Amino acid sequence: MPVTPGADAAGRTAIIAGNGLLPLKVAESLEKQGRAPFLVPIRGEADPALYRYDHAEISVVEFRKLIGSMKAASVRNVILAGGVRSRPHFSDLKLDGPTLAAIPRMIGALGRGDDALLRAFISLIEAYGFRVVGAHEIVPDLLAPPAARLTNRKPDKHDEHNIAIAREAARMIGVLDVGQGTVAVGGRVVALEGAEGTDAMLERVAQLRNAGRIPPKGGVLVKCAKPTQDERADLPAIGLSTVENAARAGLAGIAVEAGRTFILGFGETVAAANDKGIFIETFGSTDS
Amino acid sequence: MPVTPGADAAGRTAIIAGNGLLPLKVAESLEKQGRAPFLVPIRGEADPALYRYDHAEISVVEFRKLIGSMKAASVRNVILAGGVRSRPHFSDLKLDGPTLAAIPRMIGALGRGDDALLRAFISLIEAYGFRVVGAHEIVPDLLAPPAARLTNRKPDKHDEHNIAIAREAARMIGVLDVGQGTVAVGGRVVALEGAEGTDAMLERVAQLRNAGRIPPKGGVLVKCAKPTQDERADLPAIGLSTVENAARAGLAGIAVEAGRTFILGFGETVAAANDKGIFIETFGSTDS
Repeated sequence: MPVTPGADAAGRTAIIAGNGLLPLKVAESLEKQGRAPFLVPIRGEADPALYRYDHAEISVVEFRKLIGSMKAASVRNVILAGGVRSRPHFSDLKLDGPTLAAIPRMIGALGRGDDALLRAFISLIEAYGFRVVGAHEIVPDLLAPPAARLTNRKPDKHDEHNIAIAREAARMIGVLDVGQGTVAVGGRVVALEGAEGTDAMLERVAQLRNAGRIPPKGGVLVKCAKPTQDERADLPAIGLSTVENAARAGLAGIAVEAGRTFILGFGETVAAANDKGIFIETFGSTDS
Repeated sequence: MPVTPGADAAGRTAIIAGNGLLPLKVAESLEKQGRAPFLVPIRGEADPALYRYDHAEISVVEFRKLIGSMKAASVRNVILAGGVRSRPHFSDLKLDGPTLAAIPRMIGALGRGDDALLRAFISLIEAYGFRVVGAHEIVPDLLAPPAARLTNRKPDKHDEHNIAIAREAARMIGVLDVGQGTVAVGGRVVALEGAEGTDAMLERVAQLRNAGRIPPKGGVLVKCAKPTQDERADLPAIGLSTVENAARAGLAGIAVEAGRTFILGFGETVAAANDKGIFIETFGSTDS
């Protein structure tokens, strides 16, 4: 746990890092800007590559250590980046002062879904004097650009129809605070993302395809933010693995919400899509 | 293909049989009523036990054989029972007269989802002079009884909350014509049924549970009919395997819509639920 406080004492930024590529991309971006980040990798979730930065690893239940290590590192700003698959088990909670104080807020939120949990977590961190900022404020270049076609392949009219119905379904499951992704094939929504995540949903679509339970080709993945989403946490993301899994599921392409979805590893992601012959398209969050 | 026409020439009833237990239950019920059914098992979908009845097997694309064999067996009424996982591939279609005539209607429907496809199929069969009736009209005793608790275990207030949010999600995915089932665990909807079906969704919940990605116990499966559902086809169903899979996923119970959900093998299904310690409860389609 090499903590070197004071590197940017006036406004050092911590990244509480869940799974996926986003935390690393945010860390690299801060580094390029000359602002050495402080990492708080969540055990069992965060990418090992993050441990080369100043860091203090925590488990998802170690709220006291989280607060203490960020104070010791003179952190002012906090970014939440990456998903957290595990949910705290109350039997694992270490009942120190700050954790005890956090429990009522977190219990209320656990009963209301991901979005509420994140909001509660954000307000709790802010109650300790930190400022929670969105990853997109630090790395706006990672956001999907407005209404753009990024690949050689373009959606045809069947694809456009699939995008339209998958968007409608994604909007509804977003209202329910269940998930951010849907797949439509042959004019029908065939998969809705729940707690399993996008990659597992695409694997399911591949299985349905192999079993002959959906038409043999085509279809789209749509991802968009929840209408009520706090943009400081959990914006949807796609990347190289999304493209590879979409291709394996036989999809024609991917459509994501512009300005509210991260495209991680933009160059390699677009190159892989071109290589696999699938499209990536973005749509405005207000057009419909 | 032993076809003995005339057993009930005035109003013989055919069962076009997809997968699951429902076709067999309907056949047994007709038999008990002294009305020998004519079976049309769909190849690769129907239960082999159905082949002991007068029958003519078809593939999902053999519309001509379907119409011809039902006419030869003096069928008047037609029941659609059981799900059909495979979707016709146009390359497989035998382009005889009736199939050619059916194509425009079916293509329109394929673009609109399960419900539209079933409606198109029903109106097509009726155009050939048959009367399509609901399985529930023949076997009303298989329907879930109104607002009842069928098992020893009763839902507690956490279960009631999970039922409420899972019902809301099930209603929304029904409006989208995507699926009929949802699972809520710990006050959060974690799985939405798409083309994979209920058993595969429950398997997914079991995996999420084993991976520690949802709370370690509790939760409910909810199934209800789509708001726009044609009740002559594809009413939701639960049975012994649903109970076993729900128990394997660690759920506390199952709640289904009264009067619009089949409980197949009622006695053994309820007995299994009592054995596994899970509840089965029905809710009214109008209360909310």
